[in-house]
Amino acid sequence: MSEIRDSLPLKTDRSRLRRAHAKGAHDRASLYALLASVPLCHIGHLDEGAPIVTPTLQWREGDRIYWHGSSKSRAMLRAADQPVCLTVTRLDGLVLARSGFEHSVNHASAMLFGTPSLVTDPGRKRHHLKAMFDHLYPGRWDQLRPMNDLELRATAVIGMDISEASVKTRAGPSDEPNEDRSWPVWAGTLPISWQTGPAEPDADNLAPLPEALSGYQFGRQA
Amino acid sequence: MSEIRDSLPLKTDRSRLRRAHAKGAHDRASLYALLASVPLCHIGHLDEGAPIVTPTLQWREGDRIYWHGSSKSRAMLRAADQPVCLTVTRLDGLVLARSGFEHSVNHASAMLFGTPSLVTDPGRKRHHLKAMFDHLYPGRWDQLRPMNDLELRATAVIGMDISEASVKTRAGPSDEPNEDRSWPVWAGTLPISWQTGPAEPDADNLAPLPEALSGYQFGRQA
Repeated sequence: MSEIRDSLPLKTDRSRLRRAHAKGAHDRASLYALLASVPLCHIGHLDEGAPIVTPTLQWREGDRIYWHGSSKSRAMLRAADQPVCLTVTRLDGLVLARSGFEHSVNHASAMLFGTPSLVTDPGRKRHHLKAMFDHLYPGRWDQLRPMNDLELRATAVIGMDISEASVKTRAGPSDEPNEDRSWPVWAGTLPISWQTGPAEPDADNLAPLPEALSGYQFGRQA
Repeated sequence: MSEIRDSLPLKTDRSRLRRAHAKGAHDRASLYALLASVPLCHIGHLDEGAPIVTPTLQWREGDRIYWHGSSKSRAMLRAADQPVCLTVTRLDGLVLARSGFEHSVNHASAMLFGTPSLVTDPGRKRHHLKAMFDHLYPGRWDQLRPMNDLELRATAVIGMDISEASVKTRAGPSDEPNEDRSWPVWAGTLPISWQTGPAEPDADNLAPLPEALSGYQFGRQA
């Protein structure tokens, strides 16, 4: 990954954060840390003028963000060369206050805006798919049965410049007023976390579980 | 919750599932089970013709789906009376095959299409907010410091008929061809699961942790 250039402005009129319930940021360090910690994203694109939201995995290479899918996928083809909004959300905890109003959810979320384009060159496509594997499963790509041309043709890769984005973060206990604190109901935070594993090997494995996968944590490689 | 009427057709030209990489469904039982298991949703709406994807929590009442936010929130106001796509995604596991191509992600995801409308009547709004709490934290609403009119005015609730939707599910091991199975790399599944807790009480609690919250699992009440 290239060095993070925080000088590149991510803040535009659209990505500008308007409300202060969550801490807002427009710096690449915050954005890239969130992208690395949550591979799942939701991509909003247009279909005959109406919004469609598709879940997929994203990965970053330098100042571009990528995702992939079947080359027959309508969601891939529809998103190319059209304005999209890519949103990444991490839930961190449930904040239980003494009033309904002050309940909240600790989280980090990012919105990225742009116009993605399909990667058409087969060599570049292969390069990007390897980059996805290097991000999700470091070292695994070179151990796999190599991708053949049929598989490469059946796979679409799409990429978008990271040039307009915002990050929101909500952390810590509730913001409830002091006069609520004497109300006799339990208040506090229930942290939320992901767990990956334990690994379930296919029955006919010829190789042992690699050490990197035995304690593997999806989306915590940041 | 009302009984599930599977006779109501959720399948339309837009929600029709076109591709078979994941098992598709259009029945309310599958959809409602997924909605109950994953409170987080991503809502795609339009802003001056471009898509925006906003994360929030959803809850269902009968054959309508609801979400809430600040009554000053642009995302709430923009979504009302406009076509939206509401997507719910649950990641269940990482499927590691012996080729890159056959790697996959076990998941369930749903897309719901419709045109939501704001709940304007204060009594109805209060009713729906209680329904959200009854869904997320059964029994808690009646223990809280009651919501006042100022708080009610500051909260927007939006609801949408569930009339057009699809569910996709991918489960089980990889679909890799038999000839790949002799490739000497580990293959199998890494299950993904959520964890909620252990609870972190506020310092000045006057009430003990309720039993229901000590083993609480966010989004597993289905």
